[in-house]
Amino acid sequence: MTVRASVVVTGTEVLAGRVTDRNGPWVAQQLLELGVDVAHITICGDRPDDLTAQLRFLADQRLDLIVTTGGLGPTADDLTVATVAALYGRELSLDVQLEKQISEIVERWRSRMSSAVDSEPLKAGIRKQAMVPEGAQSISPTGTAPGVAIAATESGMLPAILILPGPPRELQAMWPQALDSAPVAQVLTRRAQIRQDTIRGYRLSEADLAATLRTAEDEIHGFEHLEITTCLSLGELEMVTRYEKTAAPTYFDLVDLIQKHHGAHVFSTDGSTIDDIVADRLSGRRIATAESCTGGMIAARLTDRSGSSAYVIGAVVSYANEAKTGLLDVPADTIEQHGAVSETVAALMAEGAIERLGVDIAVSTSGVAGPGGGTELKPVGTVCFAIAVVDRPTVTRTLHLPGDRASVRALSTTAAMHMLADALTPDR
Amino acid sequence: MTVRASVVVTGTEVLAGRVTDRNGPWVAQQLLELGVDVAHITICGDRPDDLTAQLRFLADQRLDLIVTTGGLGPTADDLTVATVAALYGRELSLDVQLEKQISEIVERWRSRMSSAVDSEPLKAGIRKQAMVPEGAQSISPTGTAPGVAIAATESGMLPAILILPGPPRELQAMWPQALDSAPVAQVLTRRAQIRQDTIRGYRLSEADLAATLRTAEDEIHGFEHLEITTCLSLGELEMVTRYEKTAAPTYFDLVDLIQKHHGAHVFSTDGSTIDDIVADRLSGRRIATAESCTGGMIAARLTDRSGSSAYVIGAVVSYANEAKTGLLDVPADTIEQHGAVSETVAALMAEGAIERLGVDIAVSTSGVAGPGGGTELKPVGTVCFAIAVVDRPTVTRTLHLPGDRASVRALSTTAAMHMLADALTPDR
Repeated sequence: MTVRASVVVTGTEVLAGRVTDRNGPWVAQQLLELGVDVAHITICGDRPDDLTAQLRFLADQRLDLIVTTGGLGPTADDLTVATVAALYGRELSLDVQLEKQISEIVERWRSRMSSAVDSEPLKAGIRKQAMVPEGAQSISPTGTAPGVAIAATESGMLPAILILPGPPRELQAMWPQALDSAPVAQVLTRRAQIRQDTIRGYRLSEADLAATLRTAEDEIHGFEHLEITTCLSLGELEMVTRYEKTAAPTYFDLVDLIQKHHGAHVFSTDGSTIDDIVADRLSGRRIATAESCTGGMIAARLTDRSGSSAYVIGAVVSYANEAKTGLLDVPADTIEQHGAVSETVAALMAEGAIERLGVDIAVSTSGVAGPGGGTELKPVGTVCFAIAVVDRPTVTRTLHLPGDRASVRALSTTAAMHMLADALTPDR
Repeated sequence: MTVRASVVVTGTEVLAGRVTDRNGPWVAQQLLELGVDVAHITICGDRPDDLTAQLRFLADQRLDLIVTTGGLGPTADDLTVATVAALYGRELSLDVQLEKQISEIVERWRSRMSSAVDSEPLKAGIRKQAMVPEGAQSISPTGTAPGVAIAATESGMLPAILILPGPPRELQAMWPQALDSAPVAQVLTRRAQIRQDTIRGYRLSEADLAATLRTAEDEIHGFEHLEITTCLSLGELEMVTRYEKTAAPTYFDLVDLIQKHHGAHVFSTDGSTIDDIVADRLSGRRIATAESCTGGMIAARLTDRSGSSAYVIGAVVSYANEAKTGLLDVPADTIEQHGAVSETVAALMAEGAIERLGVDIAVSTSGVAGPGGGTELKPVGTVCFAIAVVDRPTVTRTLHLPGDRASVRALSTTAAMHMLADALTPDR
């Protein structure tokens, strides 16, 4: 049986676009992995009327579970618990034990943070966070805010609801406990067995994949049992398919068809990302980066993984030409002659990183990220790359990447990861 | 008069949390800056029933404008135009001129990307993108997908709707043209004059600010005319206030009260970010970074700004100890004696960067980002920083930062920016 859930994200700062919401996507991913279907994510500001409207809308959508995030803080704009309680017709009452627990946490934090004196307004905020709707199950705070879980109403008019805090770290820390709460656990017992698989391509156009999928619709029996979504992001095209386990043979037929048409552009069919692939292929090797226009983004991305200290030795961000010369031994007159944005300089940067950092492989970037600095010969978006590998000829490449500064830098970083993966391919 | 709008973000990849939505926040920000109130953002997958449900919900919320993003592509899961047309009771018809325009764009892209042959499925996708609802205004494609604008129905049952493509770059490029389209321009003529101001604090607790706001509620006349939202992100506390222009004196009273209580922790009242402040104060100076646990993130952040090549010379990511010695001249026995994560080593790293890169100021980080590598004396989250400035004593500091690897690295990057801003304060 399909269990359907939706997520309500609260917070004017999220609605207004000042803060990127990480909770909606995270909760949705967790639910999908649990085999729960996610129908809607809604975002509202800290206004009780708008929140009530969203909750009423979702209650009408044949859902089994609503998860809310945010609005559990001490300030007056934090309204989620009171708003949900009103909708579900529950009185709020003070949980004295919880009040004491929050009080201790706030005390611990304040001693580290700033210096306002202990005060009645501060206590009022704590008391507010310790109010629990009657019949609800409270979930211990992982920050200062406790979560709340309420079972579906017996009439079936309102689904089960799980109220979680806004700070992603607090929410994520609370998740296992939230799943174990009786109202949520009860919903989860009803879910079906769903699989979700991902194919990733690079430099594969969405139009071409769409054409192949139209072919598949005609040629593959049972194609309609696959729920397929495609998405292009930073030059990578991702195709995710959800299906009930019985439709697995159909999915494998689709994978074969895509491999046949686009094999050269498909780099992953098992869910691995390009970061996973690079990390895996680096095993036993030492890497460094020499970056100009990417300004450290490739190094930051490589070291994003725990355990990367086993293979990342370091990086040189040679933003200015003098740093290319001083730290990577690129001769000043070569830069003068070819320009900093040239395959020659990129090659010397990567080779300089090999020498200076004593690594096995190095990648370099030198490009015009914009908005200024473009010329007729080297317009904004021109980026030169090099991959140097000990005892192998250095490989260079120039790409013309579209978009603004952020786009050029991000596309360059992804391109560098793909070049590394290619250079590290086992059979070479 | 208040003009209310809402945004519908479509795309299963967004709903499922596989892609971070940038359109909802971006469109909301643009609307708010135009003085339009944003009530809801809703996210749905590529399922016509769920999209219709969201559109019906929003149509009931006394809105003047709905903006949709995504679902305009050539694949079968792109359903927005057809779904909206059905709800608004409009037939779709082929715009032959548009079909030709899209055809030419696709042809140009395909020649750069991959190699599928010209085919009937490809043409079907293009034809699909060129279907326009009757009476609607189409907006020229900036990628392959045209936008669509439809005026509010005369009965007032359905608000004006603006249909935009999903790729953020395409959407943003289309925005000015979309605002000029008759259905949208008509809505915008009705908006009021709204101001929005921001105060930013660092190492200021949300509980303390909440206490001050409770005081303000009692003490400041007209406080209820301010719509205040606070948000804690990466150690920075942001307070945004929206108010009609007539309430400006009340807002200034609030700013004074906050300065009185938390002045030492407030770093911005004019909307500037810590990145703006650092960039501004660096004017005429040369900077470099020497990073271990942040792995290039500070350099990436500094070079994120256009024009940063005027002051960023470069960076050394000395992830391995040998890189600290080889590239920054930190003696191996000092590392041995104090440990890589120590203020002594951080200081030598920053001073090494000053020497090696010939800069005026350098910041360094060395810490335990986790999840491994923690010890009893230096647990995960321990990060040592140093700021070296030519002809001044080097300043060091150790922080104990909470959370997982990503959190420790992000908090460290922000902390480094604040230390730079402090070190660059004009009166020192």
